[in-house]
Amino acid sequence: MAEKILAQEKNVYSLGPIIHNKNEVERLAKAGLKTVEKIDQIESGTVIIRSHGAAPEQIRKLKEKKLNVADATCVLVKRVQRIAGQLERNGYKVVIIGEENHPEVQAVVGCGKDVIVVADEADLGKLPKNGKLGIVCQTTQSPEHFGKMLGIIGRCSFSELKVINTLCQEAIKRQESAVQLCKQVDIMFVLGGLDSANTRRLAELCKKYNNETFYLQNWKELDIKTIFSKNIAGVTAGASTPDWIIAEFVENLEAFGR
Amino acid sequence: MAEKILAQEKNVYSLGPIIHNKNEVERLAKAGLKTVEKIDQIESGTVIIRSHGAAPEQIRKLKEKKLNVADATCVLVKRVQRIAGQLERNGYKVVIIGEENHPEVQAVVGCGKDVIVVADEADLGKLPKNGKLGIVCQTTQSPEHFGKMLGIIGRCSFSELKVINTLCQEAIKRQESAVQLCKQVDIMFVLGGLDSANTRRLAELCKKYNNETFYLQNWKELDIKTIFSKNIAGVTAGASTPDWIIAEFVENLEAFGR
Repeated sequence: MAEKILAQEKNVYSLGPIIHNKNEVERLAKAGLKTVEKIDQIESGTVIIRSHGAAPEQIRKLKEKKLNVADATCVLVKRVQRIAGQLERNGYKVVIIGEENHPEVQAVVGCGKDVIVVADEADLGKLPKNGKLGIVCQTTQSPEHFGKMLGIIGRCSFSELKVINTLCQEAIKRQESAVQLCKQVDIMFVLGGLDSANTRRLAELCKKYNNETFYLQNWKELDIKTIFSKNIAGVTAGASTPDWIIAEFVENLEAFGR
Repeated sequence: MAEKILAQEKNVYSLGPIIHNKNEVERLAKAGLKTVEKIDQIESGTVIIRSHGAAPEQIRKLKEKKLNVADATCVLVKRVQRIAGQLERNGYKVVIIGEENHPEVQAVVGCGKDVIVVADEADLGKLPKNGKLGIVCQTTQSPEHFGKMLGIIGRCSFSELKVINTLCQEAIKRQESAVQLCKQVDIMFVLGGLDSANTRRLAELCKKYNNETFYLQNWKELDIKTIFSKNIAGVTAGASTPDWIIAEFVENLEAFGR
């Protein structure tokens, strides 16, 4: 979507980095995409809402400023936002299990008056006692972590929990495939941006099962010594890792093997 | 309620043992209470529905036979039954976390068309994939176990969970007090019937924190050698343990101490 718009317009903005991948952000910056942190920095033109979404209040402000809004929010993220709003309207205290500072989580927080973010056990003190909680999850969390947190919340005092599974099934499949693959190889590479929540999750999972797991942004970051004496390498990548980074990595790895 | 009815009527029945306490059941049997397992065994008179409740179908049958029904179902158990029915009508697959053969659980099972009983991990295969589950809990389970099972269910595939906390807060308080007490004594006694779910839970919990925990039905079962050389004894009892059993035990224990 960004490429298409950039081919037609001059003033094209992304509210925050369009994707959690430095190399891809740089490539699109060269093609003319301007990344801004605040709406005040935009005077006119088109603003792309990245896949992680934006809070309704931000979109309202953009429209108020008569800016064109190109909404590239992931449909699954839109669903979390919609569900969070519905749960709040239905009298539930909304809880999102996820990383406080992740833009997806921040956008969901913006969909309610008082959404509680629970990253781990340390955040449980934020929950009301005997509450009626409406629980959703950052789309890229693992079912393991989601279940673990539900178990801990379930041990606390609550009157009702309404839990909507908002995990991305594609991310789960990717996690399962990565775990399967990493068990069969001598060395495992997880490619992707360091800010990418779903890539980080992949790396954490693979590291559990294969200690020779390396989380890299691209081929340049590889310390070639790590592949000496290894026979089989596995490669996986986050949802935000562009194909060209994966292709480049695999080609170089194969060339090295030959 | 049983005593009052027995003082006025001759044909008084209990559908299943009125309480999970052998001594109390024997005492009421001497006072005239007849315990039956099946409705066919009753021809006329009054039938007491015990605190664990009965399935709506059983109550319908009793009324069809023109029997008087004296409903002594615990209000909290009635609540679980009502919630299970509501959840099913609202399109949820009803799940009760509890012991399959416990009469309370059986009565709740009778409140829906297809209620799934989950006692532990081994029962998770009974759950539908990607289901919309309405989850309740046997009133006398511990928050620990309830949370643990929610955590395990949360790791599985599901689309939605609606969890209503149906734990008995009195039972939880009793568990907390018992745990606190057993940590401060040399020997701990848990008094109650061997079929009593809430008494068994107390005994399991105390055993965790004080290895010198003994689960007894009454004073007669005490092996006096166990209290030799002990300074402080703690005593707790299940909700179904009559006061006279507790009083007798404590009096004898105090007399022994003197």
